[in-house]
Amino acid sequence: MANMPVERLPRLSRVAVCGGTHGNELSGVYLVRELLKVKKKKKKEEEDEDGGAMSVLLVLSNPRAMQQCLRYIDTDLNRCFTHACLIGPTLDKTPYEMRRARELNAMLGPKGSAGAMDLICDLHNTTANMGLSLITYSDHDWICMHIFRHLQRQIPDTPVRYIHYDVTSKESYSLDSVGKHGFGMTMEVGPQPHGVVRSNIYTTMKSGVQYMLDWVHFFNSGVIFDGGFMDVFTVVKHIDYPRDGETHNITAAIHPQLQDRDFCLLRPGDPLFQTFSGETLRYTGSEPLYPFFINESAYYEKGIALCLARKRRVKIPSLITIWPSKYIHNG
Amino acid sequence: MANMPVERLPRLSRVAVCGGTHGNELSGVYLVRELLKVKKKKKKEEEDEDGGAMSVLLVLSNPRAMQQCLRYIDTDLNRCFTHACLIGPTLDKTPYEMRRARELNAMLGPKGSAGAMDLICDLHNTTANMGLSLITYSDHDWICMHIFRHLQRQIPDTPVRYIHYDVTSKESYSLDSVGKHGFGMTMEVGPQPHGVVRSNIYTTMKSGVQYMLDWVHFFNSGVIFDGGFMDVFTVVKHIDYPRDGETHNITAAIHPQLQDRDFCLLRPGDPLFQTFSGETLRYTGSEPLYPFFINESAYYEKGIALCLARKRRVKIPSLITIWPSKYIHNG
Repeated sequence: MANMPVERLPRLSRVAVCGGTHGNELSGVYLVRELLKVKKKKKKEEEDEDGGAMSVLLVLSNPRAMQQCLRYIDTDLNRCFTHACLIGPTLDKTPYEMRRARELNAMLGPKGSAGAMDLICDLHNTTANMGLSLITYSDHDWICMHIFRHLQRQIPDTPVRYIHYDVTSKESYSLDSVGKHGFGMTMEVGPQPHGVVRSNIYTTMKSGVQYMLDWVHFFNSGVIFDGGFMDVFTVVKHIDYPRDGETHNITAAIHPQLQDRDFCLLRPGDPLFQTFSGETLRYTGSEPLYPFFINESAYYEKGIALCLARKRRVKIPSLITIWPSKYIHNG
Repeated sequence: MANMPVERLPRLSRVAVCGGTHGNELSGVYLVRELLKVKKKKKKEEEDEDGGAMSVLLVLSNPRAMQQCLRYIDTDLNRCFTHACLIGPTLDKTPYEMRRARELNAMLGPKGSAGAMDLICDLHNTTANMGLSLITYSDHDWICMHIFRHLQRQIPDTPVRYIHYDVTSKESYSLDSVGKHGFGMTMEVGPQPHGVVRSNIYTTMKSGVQYMLDWVHFFNSGVIFDGGFMDVFTVVKHIDYPRDGETHNITAAIHPQLQDRDFCLLRPGDPLFQTFSGETLRYTGSEPLYPFFINESAYYEKGIALCLARKRRVKIPSLITIWPSKYIHNG
């Protein structure tokens, strides 16, 4: 693609891989533990003889929630990384996750600063049938987008998608947003019940992390990655369950024809919910949109039955690091 | 089957259907709420003009755990119904579920007494791929066994099995054991993540409860149910995950070739676990057995990766109530 621009970006010398940000999402917990064990055996940082040296910091984000196999102890850690949360005073009554967020910000950030990690990959599971999704705050983060394309090519037996939450760096709230320039991504793999580890989901996440680190290695080594086009799912809105006006209890479940059909186009009039008495409720929106996070366990309390996204084809430039040690064309 | 004996048993005039014994197993929670709503609309007890009158008591067993969408608050309610637990003194420090068990025993029991419910059906979900299972403490409880055969015939699109825990009435610990003569059953439906309600699983449970109540209605009305043979899975033992000697953390997940294959014969040498480094561990038992509760989320803390059962063909007698109002042959 000769007429594609070439983007030049600094090397990624410090990468963090985090698991257990939600203590009951077990693939990340056991994967980070396994990687720590392997690293301990090697007794040295990963190094690249070709000059693509990078350090990989492995982090278990929420040890107390992990110990109790809960999403969180006091509050959702993965909503605690806004600037407002990170700079507040730490008092006795400050929720555990708020305090932990500040520790993690000191370890991996400070958020958005020159001293922050070059790339943070935060590992999550969902009960939704979402395959492997990379979730970011940007549709022009060429690093994450090229990593996405690499994963899509390397893991052909699992659907890999790129989800974009259109939120400013100031409003960004998740652990991965602490990295330099907001570089960072959530790697979300499902379906898996929380509090369970399934071999197939663990293996998919392990591959995802390995290919992500491989890509960084290639990038740091000076490989040129060709530009091109890719699909981005940009979040438009979310829909809550129908609820009883008095008790606020839900009165319907996701319709069986929609359940597990994440990223399949939802058209106006399609079945959306099935009430507990058996009635079908339909999607009344005017625009066909792509549903995901369908029936995610942790989102009942957030009032989210599913998210809806618009799919867009986005042009991404070719990419190379500013200080490559060698040039290899990866066409 | 002319040479089959005929068993005559009293009518079942008081039946209890309980949901939310584990507060995050949502099918039972929403089904009992729905049945309560329907009952309120009818504004009267279910009655049968043919003299098969029965009352159906609908119970939400663990409201505090339901509110927080947790299995339990202090301790597992469904292990609190031993005689020893039920007769102890109630003190300030008595765990919430222990106190609640005594309330439920007063409401549905007292355990094993003449005043207890004739039949208790306690609704549960599992993350294991178990279809609909009836779990009881007896392999000669003709009521439960005939209900099982009725469900198996009426719900042909879902596998229905009968599981027998060989435990004495004195040792029995679950809510359903509070009924008269130990009549009672756990209706376990899966796979469903805890904290999630899936329409298909909800509908299966709703059918299961409806057909169970239909059966009681038929029985009370004097229908003769033919004897015959059925398969019973009697629990032999359970197997824990491989664990790290120091941290006690699990070091392997259920093998992908075993995952979701509940009730498929496990033979010596078959893959059992896959370690987090990718190694396969095999079943070293000498007897082929039937696995179930494979990778049940709530059993990690109990040290159970799967249960193993022996399958036996059991002869059951024909059944009729002692005081039928009419005789109908249901051949």
